[in-house]
Amino acid sequence: MINFTVGPVQSSQTVLNIGAEQVPYFRTNEFSEIMLENEALMKKFTNAKEDARVVFMTGSGTASMEASIVNFFDERDKILVINGGSFGQRFVDLCELYQLNYTQIKLEVGQALTSEQLAQYDNQGFTGFLVNIHETSTGVHYDIDIISEFCQKNNIFLVVDAISSFLADKIDISGSKIDVMITGSQKALACPPGVSVIVLSKKAVDRLEDYPSKCMYLNLKSALKNGERGQTPFTPAVGILRQIHARLKEIEANGGVDVEIARVKELAEDFRNKIKDLPFEITSESMSNAVTPLHPTTCSAYEIFLTLKDEYGIWVCPNGGELADKIMRVGHIGALSCKDNDILIAALKDLQSRGII
Amino acid sequence: MINFTVGPVQSSQTVLNIGAEQVPYFRTNEFSEIMLENEALMKKFTNAKEDARVVFMTGSGTASMEASIVNFFDERDKILVINGGSFGQRFVDLCELYQLNYTQIKLEVGQALTSEQLAQYDNQGFTGFLVNIHETSTGVHYDIDIISEFCQKNNIFLVVDAISSFLADKIDISGSKIDVMITGSQKALACPPGVSVIVLSKKAVDRLEDYPSKCMYLNLKSALKNGERGQTPFTPAVGILRQIHARLKEIEANGGVDVEIARVKELAEDFRNKIKDLPFEITSESMSNAVTPLHPTTCSAYEIFLTLKDEYGIWVCPNGGELADKIMRVGHIGALSCKDNDILIAALKDLQSRGII
Repeated sequence: MINFTVGPVQSSQTVLNIGAEQVPYFRTNEFSEIMLENEALMKKFTNAKEDARVVFMTGSGTASMEASIVNFFDERDKILVINGGSFGQRFVDLCELYQLNYTQIKLEVGQALTSEQLAQYDNQGFTGFLVNIHETSTGVHYDIDIISEFCQKNNIFLVVDAISSFLADKIDISGSKIDVMITGSQKALACPPGVSVIVLSKKAVDRLEDYPSKCMYLNLKSALKNGERGQTPFTPAVGILRQIHARLKEIEANGGVDVEIARVKELAEDFRNKIKDLPFEITSESMSNAVTPLHPTTCSAYEIFLTLKDEYGIWVCPNGGELADKIMRVGHIGALSCKDNDILIAALKDLQSRGII
Repeated sequence: MINFTVGPVQSSQTVLNIGAEQVPYFRTNEFSEIMLENEALMKKFTNAKEDARVVFMTGSGTASMEASIVNFFDERDKILVINGGSFGQRFVDLCELYQLNYTQIKLEVGQALTSEQLAQYDNQGFTGFLVNIHETSTGVHYDIDIISEFCQKNNIFLVVDAISSFLADKIDISGSKIDVMITGSQKALACPPGVSVIVLSKKAVDRLEDYPSKCMYLNLKSALKNGERGQTPFTPAVGILRQIHARLKEIEANGGVDVEIARVKELAEDFRNKIKDLPFEITSESMSNAVTPLHPTTCSAYEIFLTLKDEYGIWVCPNGGELADKIMRVGHIGALSCKDNDILIAALKDLQSRGII
């Protein structure tokens, strides 16, 4: 199978080789060194400051989204949420669950966010801002600059879910004054799913003192305390953390984060050029390099997903719910090449010649 | 390295081979079938009834311990907790965090639980019982029969953490009237860490209707709803779930759960026979087949751990905190053989001849 989904994605041979190894015991200096190096490389690749910290959470991206709510907000806060799809909705659902005072900016499928929209919320006492910088469900990449400017002007604590954007699009925690950034192991990090990663600015680390965590498993304060010696409060997904280590070192050896982002960008542009003649519309006003969201104009998106899977050995990424028939997504993250794009395009042309699309 | 810890432990070649494979996309019927088979085999191996259900949680055992608190108890309850070590203490800490009404039975290191102790709590209105049936930190295996009898007599909802006991000791959910049983991927299941498993009786499934979950990530109701079609609410550790599948099928092919437990028991007895002449005391009144807790009478337990690791390529399991120098543990779970026991015993004899122990 060739995997063009947005996760889990294809891993490099180096990462797969570690998957074949026995998982070592981890309450050792040897494992601590790996974790401390993971923390340093995550900070480097996000341009976080020296006093930033990183937590590796064994769990999906949602675990880290919830950790970013339970550890940083309570009834004292007033939160602005960008809701442009199912992951924006997840932030809304978390605010509801924890009975937080929030306002959502609801965006249509594919719609970008504008500074004019944000300006309506100036000087209204907001203390928190939640955004999925790449709303993976619809493939919309919001403009971090206008968000950052709005948050700085209004002195707002900024949480950025960059789960599918980190390593595909530029992220600059220091430059954009991001307080909390989240990512996951199975997106552009291209490791198996099971670990999500939270980068915390000094401001975020300090804020933990003021907000007692309401959840033991998602407690960032105890995670940071254990992390000082390269350990975790509970048994983590040791194997995946070793794979993340190998992958971060691989990116570093290949020239660093900018080279990796350029590689993903090239793959995305190559695909977007090649898809032009086929009966698809791109449904996003503002795309991440990670994903191209496509609306097939002649048939059901979900049917294309099934046919490519069952007859061509290709996974593209289906959508759920109301968008299932309307939109499918083609990912450009993980160990893919332009030759893989050619195989997918050939398969789509074959579907066209068969009268299926 | 030879790994005698209590997790992560050594995996079979079949499990390792899956670790070397690309992780497939998972919102497919193919992955759903794997998950439904995982659920069926977990029920079979724990002798759960047909109407029981299973949740696979991407997270450590603590995530599932916390899920067993937030989904089943609130201010209406009165809970009895067995606290004989750091995992019993974790249940106590969870009760504190969620401000539950609880009483703990505190046991000394190595001390078993007696029916006389439990009898003191008869007819006092307890509604919940929390026990780590094998308190892994000290290697004490409590008697499920006396616990089960007490809970039935008093109509108490019984939560059993069997994280390190499942597949090492007999567990009979139906016979012992266990409502919730927890285990983890990296103990006797002998897969990489990252997944914990919760088996729920029909009574537990029904109880979820009465207790709105206070946590999104640990919400068992949404997990069960998605699980009906073999799916999960969030991206799970797909690779580890495929490894669990292979391992459960492997156990089934080798003759089933009783054969596996007998294998672990044989390893444990073999080791306990061979250690007799060495300067160690067994520190548990009632042992699981999973682990032998040892007090070295002549030197620090932690020093032995370090020396075996650095000079002999062997991991035994150290203890933390106050027990670090007093107790080390030797595990009998995972892909180990009596020959591995011989290698460990030879290393300990060598330490003795060198005057280290």
